[in-house]
Amino acid sequence: MGNAVVAQSGGPTAVINSSACGVIEEVLRQRDTIPSLFGANNGILGIVQEDLFDLGAESTDTIALLRATPSSAVGSCRYKLGGLEKDADKYQRLLAVFQAHNIRYFFYIGGNDSMDTADKVNRLAQKLSYDLRVMGVAKTIDNDLVATDHCPGYGSVAKFLATCVMEAGRDTEAMYTFDPVTVTEAMGRNTGWIAAATGLARRDEHEAPHLIYVPEIPFSEERFLEDVREVHRRLGRVFIVVSEGVRNEQGQYVAAQAEVDAFGHRQLGGVADYLRQLITRETGLKARYNKLDTCQRNAIHFAARTDSDEAYRCGQEAVRQALAGATGKMVTLVRTSDNPYQCATGLAPLAEVANGVKPLPRHYMDVAGTHIAEAMRSYAGPLVKGEVPIRIGMDGLPVFARFVRRPIARKLPPFVGRGS
Amino acid sequence: MGNAVVAQSGGPTAVINSSACGVIEEVLRQRDTIPSLFGANNGILGIVQEDLFDLGAESTDTIALLRATPSSAVGSCRYKLGGLEKDADKYQRLLAVFQAHNIRYFFYIGGNDSMDTADKVNRLAQKLSYDLRVMGVAKTIDNDLVATDHCPGYGSVAKFLATCVMEAGRDTEAMYTFDPVTVTEAMGRNTGWIAAATGLARRDEHEAPHLIYVPEIPFSEERFLEDVREVHRRLGRVFIVVSEGVRNEQGQYVAAQAEVDAFGHRQLGGVADYLRQLITRETGLKARYNKLDTCQRNAIHFAARTDSDEAYRCGQEAVRQALAGATGKMVTLVRTSDNPYQCATGLAPLAEVANGVKPLPRHYMDVAGTHIAEAMRSYAGPLVKGEVPIRIGMDGLPVFARFVRRPIARKLPPFVGRGS
Repeated sequence: MGNAVVAQSGGPTAVINSSACGVIEEVLRQRDTIPSLFGANNGILGIVQEDLFDLGAESTDTIALLRATPSSAVGSCRYKLGGLEKDADKYQRLLAVFQAHNIRYFFYIGGNDSMDTADKVNRLAQKLSYDLRVMGVAKTIDNDLVATDHCPGYGSVAKFLATCVMEAGRDTEAMYTFDPVTVTEAMGRNTGWIAAATGLARRDEHEAPHLIYVPEIPFSEERFLEDVREVHRRLGRVFIVVSEGVRNEQGQYVAAQAEVDAFGHRQLGGVADYLRQLITRETGLKARYNKLDTCQRNAIHFAARTDSDEAYRCGQEAVRQALAGATGKMVTLVRTSDNPYQCATGLAPLAEVANGVKPLPRHYMDVAGTHIAEAMRSYAGPLVKGEVPIRIGMDGLPVFARFVRRPIARKLPPFVGRGS
Repeated sequence: MGNAVVAQSGGPTAVINSSACGVIEEVLRQRDTIPSLFGANNGILGIVQEDLFDLGAESTDTIALLRATPSSAVGSCRYKLGGLEKDADKYQRLLAVFQAHNIRYFFYIGGNDSMDTADKVNRLAQKLSYDLRVMGVAKTIDNDLVATDHCPGYGSVAKFLATCVMEAGRDTEAMYTFDPVTVTEAMGRNTGWIAAATGLARRDEHEAPHLIYVPEIPFSEERFLEDVREVHRRLGRVFIVVSEGVRNEQGQYVAAQAEVDAFGHRQLGGVADYLRQLITRETGLKARYNKLDTCQRNAIHFAARTDSDEAYRCGQEAVRQALAGATGKMVTLVRTSDNPYQCATGLAPLAEVANGVKPLPRHYMDVAGTHIAEAMRSYAGPLVKGEVPIRIGMDGLPVFARFVRRPIARKLPPFVGRGS
């Protein structure tokens, strides 16, 4: 018997709070085993800094509303811990905070860096014989975690961005005599899962998007310009989706070429803006660009119900598995059927998830590598289904949850580790 | 008795098709007076080129679905006609096409350029004693038409962009230790109506957006950097919304300073990207930017019901007024009460609308000029209310209307006017 802490880390998603809600509601059902549940302000940084708040003090309504609230309500950060030896002071501090508050359950919702941290915390606890259950909950719009069929967060960004492409595609279609080319930038530094998902928007051959570029397939400016010219000849308009992380044959980011900013400084500009300029310069076609950036990963107003429900289930399952004795594991999604879509949960070792990245398989794209193949439709299609009910205020705009954040009194001196 | 034509022109909106739907459904109820209703492909260009299709051949379901379909389903263009003398050949051509197809009703959905064209067509018809009723239907996300309380299209872009700011604002709030500053670019080349509407997203002082910049208030980089530093000191994060058209004290576009593109060419870059770079260079704070561009004006998936219904009503009223004998008029929205919000329709001379631009009143912004005042909340608040029901396909994504576009046989030789 002991307390629990939940932390979120890394880039937010539309449904990471659904996972938090799954953890919180399930823990609160177990008050006899887990007396207190803490939230960590600013992700793992909040644990290092002993900056915790009492989730038991939040109303059931606030907690339920997490399922309709985007971004990381508990708090987040990017705070990468290195090896157990290099960052020994930080890992020891984490354990010290756990001990000070009798924390026996650590639920960490994040991507592979977070799973790496969780794995190391788990191993250190075992080494020190501190009884701790560490459970990871997958989160990333990038969908690039190994050992799981897909990641909570992905279905929602896929649904929203595909919808934006359908809508903005109609704009390009109506305005082709004036604005014939539109480039939309999709998130995805290393993998093309998000860009590829916008391919779902095209139900007929003439619809947007016409061309999709992903980091897994080397990008050639010459071939790209040929593709643009060919589509323009055929349809009179071109709607392009490009992953922010596309790279040329030498492995360099295409965006890196847009390197001189307005001040003459080197700057990693956006790839969509770069390609827009390239198109206009080389083909004479007027082009514009959309870069939804953080708007795409927080769009709870048009998130996928499938995704949201699975995110919740992963959080809930993490608690159940921890209570059943599991530790050092991440809850995975295991697809058992495409049609009808069915998905169960499973467990994978944190270390396995920590060290892998799952690229978009080549056969999910077509032969030319500029649109999706049927395999991608079968894979991603079920993940975008259903709508998440949101709460609308009297003013016509969404209402999101906000914690009161009742602080937990500190028991340790401030942390003064290296680089902190 | 004679036929009718409907055309859309200029930048699309989420609800311009609701106006088209209002026109089409009302005309189709009057088949005894108006035997045929034509749509113009590519806006006014389609009339010049006698490129018409038969809206009577479309299914009632397709027509009804226009209310859930973004962008300009009839077709659009940017094709500015000049004075009646300068572009005499084009205006005469328009009349010739009307005569060839016995078109006696011209419904033109657009902004002030379109109202200018419609006004000139109307005057030419009167001069030539050709019996024609010309009715304008207001359309612009920019909300800058005079003589109307507001413009169909505005409420929807306001609702969507304010929602995106709420959502992305939560991202900045969660990630402030890593990404403390976000700049979101709002459309609005000449007026700040759209940027200002995002101010509705802030229900509490610490919420996004923290700073809003509009073209009506001269932009000073020094003051801007002071504003950013002040908000960052106070809250630890800064969420900024900026109109694409902000100008400095000399009246120059701020975006124009980001003029050297990746190829060393002069280029009007986006102002958000420029300010992001400025912030990082001058304050050292990491900053990112969102530019939703054409996604914002087509977001039917989260459009405002008030806006959509008014757009429909304007289209319908244009037909009713034309049948009652009106011509040379634009249907206006006349607010009769703020609370409860009530709005009637009225009529304004096309010439009045054609020659005006309505800026955001200074008192709609606060004293500092960096956020909205209560007057703006009272004005814009009612316009974003209600949700537009959309149709979702089996695949979980929206389904939009698409015309079969049965062509109307041409009766005239091709147009070979100057510059065509």
